[in-house]
Amino acid sequence: MKMSELSERSGVSVASIKFYQREELLPEPERSSPNQARYAANHVDRLRLIRALVDVGGLSVAAVRRVLAAAEADIPLDWAMGVAQHAIPGSVELPDQGSRGVTEIDSVSASMGWMVSPDNPGRAMAARVLDSYLQLDHEELLSVLPEYCSAAEIVARVDLGTVALQPNRARMSETVVVGTVLGDSLFAGLRRMAQEDAAHRQFSRAES
Amino acid sequence: MKMSELSERSGVSVASIKFYQREELLPEPERSSPNQARYAANHVDRLRLIRALVDVGGLSVAAVRRVLAAAEADIPLDWAMGVAQHAIPGSVELPDQGSRGVTEIDSVSASMGWMVSPDNPGRAMAARVLDSYLQLDHEELLSVLPEYCSAAEIVARVDLGTVALQPNRARMSETVVVGTVLGDSLFAGLRRMAQEDAAHRQFSRAES
Repeated sequence: MKMSELSERSGVSVASIKFYQREELLPEPERSSPNQARYAANHVDRLRLIRALVDVGGLSVAAVRRVLAAAEADIPLDWAMGVAQHAIPGSVELPDQGSRGVTEIDSVSASMGWMVSPDNPGRAMAARVLDSYLQLDHEELLSVLPEYCSAAEIVARVDLGTVALQPNRARMSETVVVGTVLGDSLFAGLRRMAQEDAAHRQFSRAES
Repeated sequence: MKMSELSERSGVSVASIKFYQREELLPEPERSSPNQARYAANHVDRLRLIRALVDVGGLSVAAVRRVLAAAEADIPLDWAMGVAQHAIPGSVELPDQGSRGVTEIDSVSASMGWMVSPDNPGRAMAARVLDSYLQLDHEELLSVLPEYCSAAEIVARVDLGTVALQPNRARMSETVVVGTVLGDSLFAGLRRMAQEDAAHRQFSRAES
């Protein structure tokens, strides 16, 4: 298909497609002549993936490049998951060693029996939130950790289960990337729904 | 205390404190004369709260203003939670009625027995992710919903439990805001840790 049809089928403007081409996020098209590029279904798929990662996952173009490279590389899937995790915005530096947040996170992770590398980006994110709770004089919020960990384990297991369902290696890698990036938004959305339900039940009882 | 001491104790620069004052995010200080403002411990607390919401929660100054107003207003706590939810970045418009994502979310929410209002911001976030999964030809990822919902319910119940622990109404409201905004980051961090652990176990077994 021509560029105009690619734009129509993918819902991405011609200007944006050209931008993604310059950024080398799209596979090369077939060329019957220097001015005649022909695009195929895999270009439509790639454009939809880019838009989902940018619009729904909140990734920058640079981050999209990193996760696409991870999805295509012939590296072990647990590495690909690590690259996808590092590409997601919100990564932060680990608080200083000796921070109470780091100690608490490492302690609860050990009690869950998790094998987690020191540079897992989630370790820094979680430790930083715990340090904030403490600084805000909300030490009691650390009591959520065991149940948050149980819930995170449920989510992580079903995440990995969907990867195992895939028919081939390319789809497995794509699932790691898509599910890791968009799954944060999905869970955050469901948490807000469950919170509203729990709030209605708890506060309407308490205040009535 | 004077401005310089307030800056030192809170770790927030004098320029930033003056900015937050112009934005009316701080309580008025006591003034012994027009040029002599005296700040108290509640100013230190407020500055720490603002910085946690901005730096760790990713809120804009406008969003901070809305959640602080929600925390201070004498409104039912379930309303305050709704305002905190709406103030969190990442809110999106609900996809068109008739979108498959909306149908799926409403159906799983009903099967959980959740009472959720149509404008719950999480409903739109979650529906949009499901529509992305479908558009990316990853319908199998919808199979995560029941387990994600169970995990979200665990998290929401412990969230609400921490609110009930608070000694007074002001602390309850603050807990709603802090726990809702920063809890997303905490959970996302723990999910990455649990994913790494699950990936090691699953892929190293599958590929060995």
